[in-house]
Amino acid sequence: MTIFSDLESEVRSYSRLWPVVFDRAENSRLFSEDGRTYLDFFAGAGALNYGHSNAFLKQALLDYIVRDGVSHALDMLTVARRDFLETFQDVLLTPRGLQYKVVFPGPGGANAVEAALKLARRVTGRQSVVSFTNSFHGMTLGTLAVSGNATKRAAAGVPLTLTTAMPYDGYPGIGETGPRHLDRLLSDGGSGLDRPAAVIVETVQGEGGLRTAGAGWLRELADVCKRHEVLLIVDDVQMGCGRTGPFFSFEDAGITPDMVCLSKSIGGFGLPLALTLIRPELDVWKPGDHNGTFRGVSASFVTGAQALRSYWSDGTLEKSTRERGERIAAALGAIADDHSEAGLEVRGRGFAAGLRFATPGAARAVCVAAFESGLLMETSGAAADVAKLLPPLTISNDDLDEGLDIIRRCVGAVLARSK
Amino acid sequence: MTIFSDLESEVRSYSRLWPVVFDRAENSRLFSEDGRTYLDFFAGAGALNYGHSNAFLKQALLDYIVRDGVSHALDMLTVARRDFLETFQDVLLTPRGLQYKVVFPGPGGANAVEAALKLARRVTGRQSVVSFTNSFHGMTLGTLAVSGNATKRAAAGVPLTLTTAMPYDGYPGIGETGPRHLDRLLSDGGSGLDRPAAVIVETVQGEGGLRTAGAGWLRELADVCKRHEVLLIVDDVQMGCGRTGPFFSFEDAGITPDMVCLSKSIGGFGLPLALTLIRPELDVWKPGDHNGTFRGVSASFVTGAQALRSYWSDGTLEKSTRERGERIAAALGAIADDHSEAGLEVRGRGFAAGLRFATPGAARAVCVAAFESGLLMETSGAAADVAKLLPPLTISNDDLDEGLDIIRRCVGAVLARSK
Amino acid sequence: MTIFSDLESEVRSYSRLWPVVFDRAENSRLFSEDGRTYLDFFAGAGALNYGHSNAFLKQALLDYIVRDGVSHALDMLTVARRDFLETFQDVLLTPRGLQYKVVFPGPGGANAVEAALKLARRVTGRQSVVSFTNSFHGMTLGTLAVSGNATKRAAAGVPLTLTTAMPYDGYPGIGETGPRHLDRLLSDGGSGLDRPAAVIVETVQGEGGLRTAGAGWLRELADVCKRHEVLLIVDDVQMGCGRTGPFFSFEDAGITPDMVCLSKSIGGFGLPLALTLIRPELDVWKPGDHNGTFRGVSASFVTGAQALRSYWSDGTLEKSTRERGERIAAALGAIADDHSEAGLEVRGRGFAAGLRFATPGAARAVCVAAFESGLLMETSGAAADVAKLLPPLTISNDDLDEGLDIIRRCVGAVLARSK
Amino acid sequence: MTIFSDLESEVRSYSRLWPVVFDRAENSRLFSEDGRTYLDFFAGAGALNYGHSNAFLKQALLDYIVRDGVSHALDMLTVARRDFLETFQDVLLTPRGLQYKVVFPGPGGANAVEAALKLARRVTGRQSVVSFTNSFHGMTLGTLAVSGNATKRAAAGVPLTLTTAMPYDGYPGIGETGPRHLDRLLSDGGSGLDRPAAVIVETVQGEGGLRTAGAGWLRELADVCKRHEVLLIVDDVQMGCGRTGPFFSFEDAGITPDMVCLSKSIGGFGLPLALTLIRPELDVWKPGDHNGTFRGVSASFVTGAQALRSYWSDGTLEKSTRERGERIAAALGAIADDHSEAGLEVRGRGFAAGLRFATPGAARAVCVAAFESGLLMETSGAAADVAKLLPPLTISNDDLDEGLDIIRRCVGAVLARSK
Repeated sequence: MTIFSDLESEVRSYSRLWPVVFDRAENSRLFSEDGRTYLDFFAGAGALNYGHSNAFLKQALLDYIVRDGVSHALDMLTVARRDFLETFQDVLLTPRGLQYKVVFPGPGGANAVEAALKLARRVTGRQSVVSFTNSFHGMTLGTLAVSGNATKRAAAGVPLTLTTAMPYDGYPGIGETGPRHLDRLLSDGGSGLDRPAAVIVETVQGEGGLRTAGAGWLRELADVCKRHEVLLIVDDVQMGCGRTGPFFSFEDAGITPDMVCLSKSIGGFGLPLALTLIRPELDVWKPGDHNGTFRGVSASFVTGAQALRSYWSDGTLEKSTRERGERIAAALGAIADDHSEAGLEVRGRGFAAGLRFATPGAARAVCVAAFESGLLMETSGAAADVAKLLPPLTISNDDLDEGLDIIRRCVGAVLARSK
Repeated sequence: MTIFSDLESEVRSYSRLWPVVFDRAENSRLFSEDGRTYLDFFAGAGALNYGHSNAFLKQALLDYIVRDGVSHALDMLTVARRDFLETFQDVLLTPRGLQYKVVFPGPGGANAVEAALKLARRVTGRQSVVSFTNSFHGMTLGTLAVSGNATKRAAAGVPLTLTTAMPYDGYPGIGETGPRHLDRLLSDGGSGLDRPAAVIVETVQGEGGLRTAGAGWLRELADVCKRHEVLLIVDDVQMGCGRTGPFFSFEDAGITPDMVCLSKSIGGFGLPLALTLIRPELDVWKPGDHNGTFRGVSASFVTGAQALRSYWSDGTLEKSTRERGERIAAALGAIADDHSEAGLEVRGRGFAAGLRFATPGAARAVCVAAFESGLLMETSGAAADVAKLLPPLTISNDDLDEGLDIIRRCVGAVLARSK
Repeated sequence: MTIFSDLESEVRSYSRLWPVVFDRAENSRLFSEDGRTYLDFFAGAGALNYGHSNAFLKQALLDYIVRDGVSHALDMLTVARRDFLETFQDVLLTPRGLQYKVVFPGPGGANAVEAALKLARRVTGRQSVVSFTNSFHGMTLGTLAVSGNATKRAAAGVPLTLTTAMPYDGYPGIGETGPRHLDRLLSDGGSGLDRPAAVIVETVQGEGGLRTAGAGWLRELADVCKRHEVLLIVDDVQMGCGRTGPFFSFEDAGITPDMVCLSKSIGGFGLPLALTLIRPELDVWKPGDHNGTFRGVSASFVTGAQALRSYWSDGTLEKSTRERGERIAAALGAIADDHSEAGLEVRGRGFAAGLRFATPGAARAVCVAAFESGLLMETSGAAADVAKLLPPLTISNDDLDEGLDIIRRCVGAVLARSK
Repeated sequence: MTIFSDLESEVRSYSRLWPVVFDRAENSRLFSEDGRTYLDFFAGAGALNYGHSNAFLKQALLDYIVRDGVSHALDMLTVARRDFLETFQDVLLTPRGLQYKVVFPGPGGANAVEAALKLARRVTGRQSVVSFTNSFHGMTLGTLAVSGNATKRAAAGVPLTLTTAMPYDGYPGIGETGPRHLDRLLSDGGSGLDRPAAVIVETVQGEGGLRTAGAGWLRELADVCKRHEVLLIVDDVQMGCGRTGPFFSFEDAGITPDMVCLSKSIGGFGLPLALTLIRPELDVWKPGDHNGTFRGVSASFVTGAQALRSYWSDGTLEKSTRERGERIAAALGAIADDHSEAGLEVRGRGFAAGLRFATPGAARAVCVAAFESGLLMETSGAAADVAKLLPPLTISNDDLDEGLDIIRRCVGAVLARSK
């Protein structure tokens, strides 16, 4: 493994938790080159909602490559791009009564957020943005400024300005009244909070400890934004594409954000793709105002469109995720109950779930123990105090149960040790 | 085509110059769905140095997908990642005597630049950065701040701070003495130019009108940086991977930048990948200080490694690019001579070449006429006054000559019209 | 009056409320050139705590000018400067057990705050600052950034960055737990609130609606700052110099700020002077790091030293302010009781008092009516909903009662009208 | 002297060069408390153009204080304010055909510049400002950002943004073509220089080494500003009020700035006052958009108006300054000629003159020697390489000659020593 440590920057992280060289992968299983099998409750940090090497997507991709489909095309018109757009319209937007225009802002989630912030500022003529405690939106200068993690913020090397973090739902003390607090500050000409261009929010904080925003809280937030003519951006990069059940994680709350950021699983096969959806009235950009080399990745168009057709033409996957999401929650609840003295807290929604540990280091220890038992899962939260489950939505029931059982055992072992 | 105009943001640009739907592509040829063939002097804005659907890369990619190679892995250890790193070391770094550590900063060139700026600020404890007139480094907040284009800067919606643009080589009046001017400002305690963390420069300004920095100018710049302990970053996203002849565009100048940004053709097949190379001493990052979902794209590792093996194990491609680059320059020089009254100027280096037109609109008109003649090429520069040639390095001599001939004819027609 | 409207910018404000030309003034009385007399409950917005043309100060000033004392001296050593410093030390610091070094940062309160923020950032190496809702600290770029008023912030023409406003004591919803909320945000590595260099606070918000911070709240704030190694700056520009009773407004809370900003009445006679007091350990500045032309105004040194000797050598003035402050509060309370249906709220502390009106425009109407009755007082708060009393501390009981009676009558008339 | 070192911050500076306690002063003479007399070629850094304790001004001030004239009045209407405005209009503006509205922005020069920048940004809707190498405009956050001194900039503790320094007239290499260079950058859509709200310039750089801008250079700069609709601000804080001859230092260049900043000697007697003059069309402020406690200092109104009447009702002072300015230049030229091997350079204009020394430390040594000979003068420039003469305009010929002679002798002694 010396080439990794010799040649790569010390900034690498996952390889430290899982010091093994992976070779192949199928659905919820990864295979290392030394012949071991790992159950994947990590799923590419949410980029592999349809599992590894998904057979439907794989075939579509192979066909496209074999026939020399255009592989790279910036924002040129291609058959693959058209097919993706039509499928996106027909399978997702139209049935949900959603009207959005699509921006392909660049290959990753940070590009989707950068584009949303940029357009929000352009449209409103305002410069500041409100985000939330424990948010995570990316590592570029614009997206880091709306992210909460102090260590990553400090790594910017420059002050991150023009953003203010408000308390997220459930934040101790005042989280639940967050939207009302924001309303008051925006209504008060002396509050010192400049009226922002936009509010950016995750419905579940994937990197921020699996905290969740309630439907009522989100609706109140949407109302406050509307009242003050502030744009509401939902960053659905990790929670979209069905991770919590519905395709868009905000569907259950009954809100319609002004902008939506998608990436990770939108390409389906794990290849980069990102979208920023914007209300048509907001499309004030002139040609070329925002550009970039990898704005449309044909391979991702092909597998992304296939994923929409295979999994979102009917409600099967959504129903499965909702039902099995409850199974996950129940299993985690049972683990928490087994160790009531330890004050475990179940977090998350759907297939984005977590167990929060009061004991420092326990969550990490559980993940290490899980790895030794053949299960991949990571921690979440600035304090790394949450063991996070993010299985592929396509995982079999057997694999899901096996994974949950490993977690149960590992938690037991770790808590026993820490007594 | 209505789905494109109905559903996509007005920000799309290339599709306006080339209103045709492309389907397949091979090396230097694109095929539209209505059966027409286009000669490609655009090459994915430099992302397709090895041509479309390159057979070596295609086979490696198909093999990898067929055998269910891990498609997505963040910064986990994989066989594909290791192979890429080893090849990068063996084929590129070692033979050139270069010692760099590799950061995979995210999927696109902007990520490579964001990471470089971030690390430069962190290492030096300074916050400002010097860039150059007519530079282009990306569309995220951090990279836009070091880019010169006024329209794209304005689209940010916020002031772009902590950066100062110095005159690039050849900039009217003072460009040639740019490094000396910078030296004086940094030596003068009253100049008002804060000592920067880094200077970021392109050796040829791909988006900035194909202006070129001379070898002496670059060496002087490197010396000034060294003297003032300012880091030198070469953004080789467009000019690297052999575009001007050598793999790294700065090789001929004999300088060793502190950091190098690569993307576009580094993945080989047109799929996203980006690298930031850093001098080992600069690797002060802690694990996870910078992260992201698409930091290692396995498909790009596979095709990128194959491209290095196929094209950079010996000097064949480099020699060809240098020799044929002179052919391009000669052909453009002949066109300029044919129209000496029009004051055409030949720009660029190697396979990044351009013709600068004094008449407003002429360069665009040439590109439009070229498209009508079956040739794809775009303009460059904030004033769009340069017709830019960026053919695949693997183009056949026949295709190259055909394209140059089309340009010759189109320039003649456009200039005749504008008289 | 046309010269005023012809030649002065529209930005002038007080002259609109009081459209009369003043000529002379004595203690709590102003005399217009047309022979009318006005009772002054405005006192130069707090710059005239010792009244107009105070006889002790006037004589000292005349003596100094007559004998050709140095009038202007930057930070050169002068007899006047020495006398001021010695008096400041002997009369104020030593008896209170306070150890501060003195910075003369420039002529006005904004200079005192700019210097404090500058030094706090320098000492801590951090860049952001926490202020409070409805704060007011000045009109320069640095001080406006920590001020809450939206209109004045917008007038900056640039975004005001590196500052975050926290809820002040009593702010609806969460103000009372403000320090605890700040503590939590600073303890939470994911909160998105960068650890600030300093917290800047007013004990009573003179421009922000006469809101007051309780002693316990201030102590808790001081504790939080200490725990997180954040510097605590008290802006005592308006509330210092005895306005609320004790010389320093924070004395009753039992806290010792790391820095204190003084101006307005510190010069005594209404001439400019400003001081920034800093804990000795914070004095990291090198000679000349901060400079300016009017850092030491000799005339103000002379009258300022005399004021300290005349009014702060014993506790007479402080006692009077406390006792008569209660009389003011009682009188305002009686007015509020008289109109219990109107929901009037008594605000402030000591000789900085206010009546908050729920009815928009009522506070302004009271001030207009007061002017017509020969009393000068202004509104406070971003919504101008507080009628503010700021009489000279040296006002006679008769004048004080007369003024309070005018207010009683004006409030009655205004509320009767608005029914 | 221990009270000064014990109680004052280390930031104090002049007292280190002149470690003596001054007591009284008359015109060009300062008297220390130990009975020594000093000739003043410093004049309060330009705040005492009419000398110390000027008899005309002194009498007016005493009369005003004796009769209990209103001493402090914010922007209330007063007899003193009206008299100042009328005199300013009649004596200065009308005879010169200048149309400006007056802002009283606060007590010091920094306030005048802060207000100008604020208004320029507000009017244009643009945020950045162009300043010049070696400029000095103040110590507040907004004014420091347009100042060149690296040490003072670093003391801000935050990055100073939204400003770019262009080469001043005579700056090595490109200074002479500065306006043309600015024109090119503003005309080039790819230059990376955002179109600024304003350009701020000093006609002679009082703190920046007494560099001067030529009349042609200033006119070209004014033309460039006009062409690009950028506001031109002349900071005349130090060079205005007749320091270079005419009242406004830009009169000889024949330009009419959009805004002019005045302070220092505008109050006449050394008491604080500042003005921002703005073209009437720029007066877009609403009442109270900018405010402050010491916006109108009555004492300064009284002495300032008297100074205008006494010294600017006819051309006597201007003529004297021009003629004697030439005498100063000739004397300095003769000193330079005497030491032609030392490469002395005469700098400045009118009564703002300097000798630039190539030898590090020589300028400071000359000032130290001068002090020992009873002459006060300071260095100028970031490198402190210029010995600066700034005598009162009212100095007698004898005192002027005596001072020049001391300088001649001190230069000789210092250069002899350094051989």
